[in-house]
Amino acid sequence: MYKKILIGTDTISGIAPQILDAISTVSNTKTLPYGNDFFTKECQNLVKEIFEKNDVEIIPMMSGTASNSLALASFLRSYSSVICHNEAHINKDECGAPEYFSGGGKLLTISNALGRIQVGDLVKKIEEINFKGKSNSVVSGVSVTQLAENGTLYTLDELNALNKVCKTNNLYLHMDGARFSNALVAQENVSPADATWRAGVDCLSLGATKNGAMAAEIIIFFNKELAKEAKHLIKQTGHVISKTRFVSAQLNAWFKDDLWLKLAKTANKKALYLRKKLSKFKEFKFLFPTQGNEIFLQVNKNTYNNILKLNIIPNLWSKLNDDLFVIRFVTSFQTKTSEIDEIINRLEIGLSFN
Amino acid sequence: MYKKILIGTDTISGIAPQILDAISTVSNTKTLPYGNDFFTKECQNLVKEIFEKNDVEIIPMMSGTASNSLALASFLRSYSSVICHNEAHINKDECGAPEYFSGGGKLLTISNALGRIQVGDLVKKIEEINFKGKSNSVVSGVSVTQLAENGTLYTLDELNALNKVCKTNNLYLHMDGARFSNALVAQENVSPADATWRAGVDCLSLGATKNGAMAAEIIIFFNKELAKEAKHLIKQTGHVISKTRFVSAQLNAWFKDDLWLKLAKTANKKALYLRKKLSKFKEFKFLFPTQGNEIFLQVNKNTYNNILKLNIIPNLWSKLNDDLFVIRFVTSFQTKTSEIDEIINRLEIGLSFN
Amino acid sequence: MYKKILIGTDTISGIAPQILDAISTVSNTKTLPYGNDFFTKECQNLVKEIFEKNDVEIIPMMSGTASNSLALASFLRSYSSVICHNEAHINKDECGAPEYFSGGGKLLTISNALGRIQVGDLVKKIEEINFKGKSNSVVSGVSVTQLAENGTLYTLDELNALNKVCKTNNLYLHMDGARFSNALVAQENVSPADATWRAGVDCLSLGATKNGAMAAEIIIFFNKELAKEAKHLIKQTGHVISKTRFVSAQLNAWFKDDLWLKLAKTANKKALYLRKKLSKFKEFKFLFPTQGNEIFLQVNKNTYNNILKLNIIPNLWSKLNDDLFVIRFVTSFQTKTSEIDEIINRLEIGLSFN
Amino acid sequence: MYKKILIGTDTISGIAPQILDAISTVSNTKTLPYGNDFFTKECQNLVKEIFEKNDVEIIPMMSGTASNSLALASFLRSYSSVICHNEAHINKDECGAPEYFSGGGKLLTISNALGRIQVGDLVKKIEEINFKGKSNSVVSGVSVTQLAENGTLYTLDELNALNKVCKTNNLYLHMDGARFSNALVAQENVSPADATWRAGVDCLSLGATKNGAMAAEIIIFFNKELAKEAKHLIKQTGHVISKTRFVSAQLNAWFKDDLWLKLAKTANKKALYLRKKLSKFKEFKFLFPTQGNEIFLQVNKNTYNNILKLNIIPNLWSKLNDDLFVIRFVTSFQTKTSEIDEIINRLEIGLSFN
Repeated sequence: MYKKILIGTDTISGIAPQILDAISTVSNTKTLPYGNDFFTKECQNLVKEIFEKNDVEIIPMMSGTASNSLALASFLRSYSSVICHNEAHINKDECGAPEYFSGGGKLLTISNALGRIQVGDLVKKIEEINFKGKSNSVVSGVSVTQLAENGTLYTLDELNALNKVCKTNNLYLHMDGARFSNALVAQENVSPADATWRAGVDCLSLGATKNGAMAAEIIIFFNKELAKEAKHLIKQTGHVISKTRFVSAQLNAWFKDDLWLKLAKTANKKALYLRKKLSKFKEFKFLFPTQGNEIFLQVNKNTYNNILKLNIIPNLWSKLNDDLFVIRFVTSFQTKTSEIDEIINRLEIGLSFN
Repeated sequence: MYKKILIGTDTISGIAPQILDAISTVSNTKTLPYGNDFFTKECQNLVKEIFEKNDVEIIPMMSGTASNSLALASFLRSYSSVICHNEAHINKDECGAPEYFSGGGKLLTISNALGRIQVGDLVKKIEEINFKGKSNSVVSGVSVTQLAENGTLYTLDELNALNKVCKTNNLYLHMDGARFSNALVAQENVSPADATWRAGVDCLSLGATKNGAMAAEIIIFFNKELAKEAKHLIKQTGHVISKTRFVSAQLNAWFKDDLWLKLAKTANKKALYLRKKLSKFKEFKFLFPTQGNEIFLQVNKNTYNNILKLNIIPNLWSKLNDDLFVIRFVTSFQTKTSEIDEIINRLEIGLSFN
Repeated sequence: MYKKILIGTDTISGIAPQILDAISTVSNTKTLPYGNDFFTKECQNLVKEIFEKNDVEIIPMMSGTASNSLALASFLRSYSSVICHNEAHINKDECGAPEYFSGGGKLLTISNALGRIQVGDLVKKIEEINFKGKSNSVVSGVSVTQLAENGTLYTLDELNALNKVCKTNNLYLHMDGARFSNALVAQENVSPADATWRAGVDCLSLGATKNGAMAAEIIIFFNKELAKEAKHLIKQTGHVISKTRFVSAQLNAWFKDDLWLKLAKTANKKALYLRKKLSKFKEFKFLFPTQGNEIFLQVNKNTYNNILKLNIIPNLWSKLNDDLFVIRFVTSFQTKTSEIDEIINRLEIGLSFN
Repeated sequence: MYKKILIGTDTISGIAPQILDAISTVSNTKTLPYGNDFFTKECQNLVKEIFEKNDVEIIPMMSGTASNSLALASFLRSYSSVICHNEAHINKDECGAPEYFSGGGKLLTISNALGRIQVGDLVKKIEEINFKGKSNSVVSGVSVTQLAENGTLYTLDELNALNKVCKTNNLYLHMDGARFSNALVAQENVSPADATWRAGVDCLSLGATKNGAMAAEIIIFFNKELAKEAKHLIKQTGHVISKTRFVSAQLNAWFKDDLWLKLAKTANKKALYLRKKLSKFKEFKFLFPTQGNEIFLQVNKNTYNNILKLNIIPNLWSKLNDDLFVIRFVTSFQTKTSEIDEIINRLEIGLSFN
């Protein structure tokens, strides 16, 4: 029997050695709790430097769901709405957290095959809501996911176009950056600043957990105004932990010496390698370009079952119908070439078995 | 100039070596995210064994505030109330988290000099609310803090008496056990089961963070019914993190080989040692018995300032008036005898300076 | 210049004389406040009789939005969802009230041209959510609008089919009955009981305001369990007013001697009369059958502007594109034949003017 | 057997004839729903005139609880608190509505025998909260009740002193004016403006229901900034009803020709008459001065039971102990002298019976 290979998500990965070292080092220091410590201050400085912006506010977090929802709650009111893609993590995979933290705010969704919000759709959606009138709903902002849920990339041109609509309509722009580092290194000559506030992003929920950390996320408010109320709410909702310094230290190690970018590059490279190898199997239909570390395949039920029999565990993404499924492979900084080769070896043997 | 000694809280402590090892070990394993992993299952088993109860539900947490508030939210409704001591952490130090997670539930408080809810006060408070009638407020439960905020202990007799009132009035009983381990080891022949569900506790927010962990808390539902809705809410509020296994692994190392009890015993022992040494200074008036790891002193302003000048940093607990303050010293598993001796040495020199 | 004729909604109507009398009569009685009065008890009895069910709970309300949202909140949790039609009033016209009162619950919507939820769509939607897994969302129930937002009728067959899916999937069924009376009298041999609990409706938000009352709605819980928590929440949200007897008295007058049915019949008859008269204008394209008291017309922009110039004010329902609009005419118990004739006269003159 | 006399509250009163007429008149007009009507505009103008302030915002309401809570929610955040008297209606009698509408905000209470917040207590409470630090709670404002819950009056001097503390500490000042008209007419040469915004009141929840209306309250925002978000929330919570014109019309009739003041004067006068008559019974101990329309009596259990046997129903306000109760008599604009005389007659006969 084959040993089980989990390849469906990057959250199964462990901790990068540099980050584990940082946790260990911090353990020997005593500082004030709740973020009033040296490490959190250092984190703020690193963000300022890397994102080339002095007036930012940061909040170190441990939870990706909370990082998204509380960033959104900085401008989403109970009576207002945020526009996002129908497939967005905030809409489908966070158990209604944005709605919760806004006390009942709405996510209004845009559906399309591309997986990314397109300018035309956004304009139309805003018009539709405005027609109903302010007493029924107020649009507060837009949220984009970078990488998008289908693993593709918002280009700078796309972002800038969305941003223009946001500014015209007085909307905030939030970015769910759970895989922001994978997106960033996939683009040539795009700096963290270019990819965020220069493209109009007001706040970024940047995730390190899928890319090397144990549990570390960070909300970066490029628009400092938004941080004021958010800080209180994040405290009230139990997302400021006493030993915050252990979160900040993870982030610091992640940012230093471009570790975050190096880890992301590794993950992306492995994804391309895997994709190339997978392309020879006629049973797989690639659904989207692989621009970061994710591969989406359309397979029939039989193929899917064969994969499971080989003890390869992808993510079962969706069922198009009773026989046609979408599965996802995700690589991480820890994925080894040998692991991929092993997957391919098994598939060569096992897929033909029917 | 003296080197700074932080001695005001146990949250400044680091990670116990056994727990740090556990984090490091887990980093090399791959498991499913969001608590569907081996470590979380192991944690559940350890709890069953240690608390001698098979039908319990556990939820590993990273945040003490959330651990309390979400446990309370398992029975506190928006239109109902929980009775607690006025000084309780949930009432004074969690930024309104219980009110938030219950959508507007109320904490009704009892004040007294003892620092612990007394049966007579509880009965009176319940009568007062019932007089107003169910349409105005419904009492759902009672929350006790073990160790209480003033560092003292609810005895089993006290707990059982409160529990009797709870059962008579159909109220749930919650225990904020941020320093439960310190309380437990302070009592002779009291088992974890005796100290909780056998004394009527429906759910326990048990904290490991102050006593050896990096960030690990656990809600133990002895009343499994309460866990049903709670599990959804904890997910929705972003308190189920993707790499939950790192939280569970901390807890497992903490529970194994009685580590949690050993660490707590060390902390308590150091507190008694410090208290004894402090007792020779006439500037200090001890306010409560030290039954766990906390010492509360009444000092005048001048003394307080002298302490700060010696670069000893206690917690400034409250101001009784412009000249009379309450300060707190807290020891932890990491407090060294040499550190205490150093504190005493400095005080001997510095307190007499005026 | 023509005198303005408002014909876009039935909420512009006044109070039926019998109901105005009832208000006046009550004014001379003194009873206990907050619903502990004779009139509210009488209301409960009338509902039991008319709906042929003894174990029901009622709550008299003044607000339609609250009546819907608080009925939904009896089973919609913050982490769960209710399925409704995309066009439903609760989804588009209540400023997020259901999301608010459930603390962040979601409305999941079904879109189709018919305007009513069809069984196939419902089954598919439930499967889609269940696929994502319970940790991400739990479906609690289904809400239907009777009359639907496009003025058409859920037949008993349609309701029973939806109910079957609900029962299979353990979902509650709510009915927004803002125009329930118009729907009821439009069907032959269908009793109030047939149209509600015998078709599986767990709670009905029944509106009298559009059909003769000043401000009177009533939530009828056919499933009494749901009323328990709801009663507290309705009190807490300020929807139990001190002089509740004035609301109950309106409802009593409305129910007595079939007044509610008579008023609805009048409104429906006037709608059919108006529709017949409108049918001769080639500028109008009827969009849906008129089964109650509403008429939806597709018109081009020019026609719409002409109508406004005639000082006839329909409801501008939606804009299909820059030139193509949907407008709505609604009749009420107060609509006079002469008023309709006047509208037609003006249209005969004014529509040809371009 | 005596006929039952309800004398425990003014909410048992009916509708003043002028207001009933207004409802009847409006019934024959058609206007746009949801407050976009002539009557609501007229109401705004009346308020501007009577309160001598041009930049005010008003929101007509039907519910006193909602009027208070939603006014508070205009500045009370989930993580903040409002200071009020322990006995305040918002604290004890609204089922947690302020906590609900603020998503978990806290009411911090001041207790004293006077029944009104005193400046010294307020300052001390603010200091106490500020000591704990902004991360744990933020004070947003102060709420006073006029008449206070014990029927006494905040004098202009008291209000101005509280206001000074509010302004120094950047706190909003809310007034629960459920019996504001009774308080106003009890003072000589005090205008509505003096009694509110000139004394620093930012928003007033003014009640007409206890004093002549069927169901009419009004939130007056003297600080217009506060109305912005509030308007959305009031819509979202179902407190903007479709036929708002019927609420506005009640208020208009109430304000016109000083009707509100005349009705209040009648009620107050009747209270003084009743008090004088009650003073001859040695069984009654008057607890507070009667400055408006309320009388509080301390009675023993036996006396209370005798009163009930005479079919006189006061409000049982509180139980001081098993034998000592506080009861309340409240007069209204409808209370007749003959009714009071009848009460006295019965008491003369019945109180001596033991």
